[in-house]
Amino acid sequence: MSKEGHFSDRMTARIQSIESRLVVGIDPRLDCLPDGIETDDPEHALTHLGVGVIEAVAGLAAAVKPQVAFFERWGWRGWKALETVCRSASEHGIPVILDAKRGDIGSTAEAYAEALLGDEPGTLGPYVDALTVNPYLGSDSLEPFFCRVRDGGRGVFVLARTSNPGGGEFQKRPGDEIPIFEQVARAADGWGEGSRGDCGYHGVGLVVGATYPEEISQVREAAPGSFLLIPGIGAQGGSIGDIAGAFDGQGLGALVNSSRGIVQAFEKQPDRPWQEVVQEAAKESRDALEGVIWA
Amino acid sequence: MSKEGHFSDRMTARIQSIESRLVVGIDPRLDCLPDGIETDDPEHALTHLGVGVIEAVAGLAAAVKPQVAFFERWGWRGWKALETVCRSASEHGIPVILDAKRGDIGSTAEAYAEALLGDEPGTLGPYVDALTVNPYLGSDSLEPFFCRVRDGGRGVFVLARTSNPGGGEFQKRPGDEIPIFEQVARAADGWGEGSRGDCGYHGVGLVVGATYPEEISQVREAAPGSFLLIPGIGAQGGSIGDIAGAFDGQGLGALVNSSRGIVQAFEKQPDRPWQEVVQEAAKESRDALEGVIWA
Repeated sequence: MSKEGHFSDRMTARIQSIESRLVVGIDPRLDCLPDGIETDDPEHALTHLGVGVIEAVAGLAAAVKPQVAFFERWGWRGWKALETVCRSASEHGIPVILDAKRGDIGSTAEAYAEALLGDEPGTLGPYVDALTVNPYLGSDSLEPFFCRVRDGGRGVFVLARTSNPGGGEFQKRPGDEIPIFEQVARAADGWGEGSRGDCGYHGVGLVVGATYPEEISQVREAAPGSFLLIPGIGAQGGSIGDIAGAFDGQGLGALVNSSRGIVQAFEKQPDRPWQEVVQEAAKESRDALEGVIWA
Repeated sequence: MSKEGHFSDRMTARIQSIESRLVVGIDPRLDCLPDGIETDDPEHALTHLGVGVIEAVAGLAAAVKPQVAFFERWGWRGWKALETVCRSASEHGIPVILDAKRGDIGSTAEAYAEALLGDEPGTLGPYVDALTVNPYLGSDSLEPFFCRVRDGGRGVFVLARTSNPGGGEFQKRPGDEIPIFEQVARAADGWGEGSRGDCGYHGVGLVVGATYPEEISQVREAAPGSFLLIPGIGAQGGSIGDIAGAFDGQGLGALVNSSRGIVQAFEKQPDRPWQEVVQEAAKESRDALEGVIWA
């Protein structure tokens, strides 16, 4: 039950067919729920909100990005909800980028890869198109994930430059001849060998925060074959205009994530049906992004 | 329901009371189960094996270290088993070091910290004494964990130098004036401020693989207040004699992990009761370690 073809080709086809570069991050918080969703049962509340968002953004999101932490927060009940949410996205034909930032070594890395990019029923794997991973432990620690990129049609996004204020502490140290984030980016095209699709991109993408626009261009240059996943617009302070350098001449090769700005949009308009407000927020973000691409 | 006192003091008392520096890693694999545990139901099999190991090593292990990946491998059912295993260790009075290597930013890091070091019923948090975390995203990404070290009596172990062959690719780059792993180690005493116990150590420990013995001493020197957690003896090729430099003059300040060598010991003696074999393997490792310390 590997995925058909290459991740990069599926992603590119999706972007072109719905004309969207927007990834909707699903970060459900039980202290921020629309009216009508009860918090008593975390599994039910997370599922209700997550599936509701998916229904609302199905025609607007190039992909959804469930953030594992917000489900794991509620133990195995949260994990049960996460499975339902990923399955729902899959049933709606929306690619799922699972934001788990896993990283470990040897047989442990293999277990994570099997859990999150595998084919086993009863795990998330069958519903996940791509996974975020952490490079700190080196190439060999990522190989079990790359293996599923080459042979299973999946994608990974390796953290390069994160959007938080302290992201540079190790990723971009003053005095380093080559900052780590750039070393990671330069490695990506090698990691992606054997998974290049007809679109020209391969399956090993990179995460680069929108809050460091000059570094988006640096990464784009260092890793010409990588899809870039760009979080950090909206709540984290990145502006949508800053990310134009991530895209190629056809407006391809990158995805931009917005989480709270969409999933929590209902807070600002509590009197309207919440899914309608979420959908509207997604449409606005999608359109704003398309405006940047084609400006 | 924060933990009483400082993690470092609880850990030190435990080490002294049972005279053991051994951490038993719980990495259960359903393709490697003793006779009498059925694989049909992953939750049951993982629980049976995990709790069985805990019973066997209760008087010999300074701590147990469940590896999340081997439970997550089986989806929410695996997470349910993981909760039972952590609770069982806690009921047996064995400190739990949860090996999750999580790392994320902002509210996401906060969600992981709440899930894994929090007090909420229905999560692992109440049963976990310490957690492994990944430093790639910088100090601010770790702050939600440190917060629970200072105020909740928990511990964290930050990855510094990992035991895999490619661990040095980013952690120790040729040409770096200060390798990243050393920068991480130097930061640890600052991170641990506010959590120093009567034993002299604080709650922000470091992970250093046994496969790089000269670097254990480097880390020991850079982070005099950190507990060191040392994986990589046995299956990964590190030798027990290589890790003497991790301990202080009282034989304190470090813990040595063995996983497969203990949990899968029954494979070599299939005709004996499996828990007896596991217990014997734990005793041998414990005694070998004590021999190194007091040599």
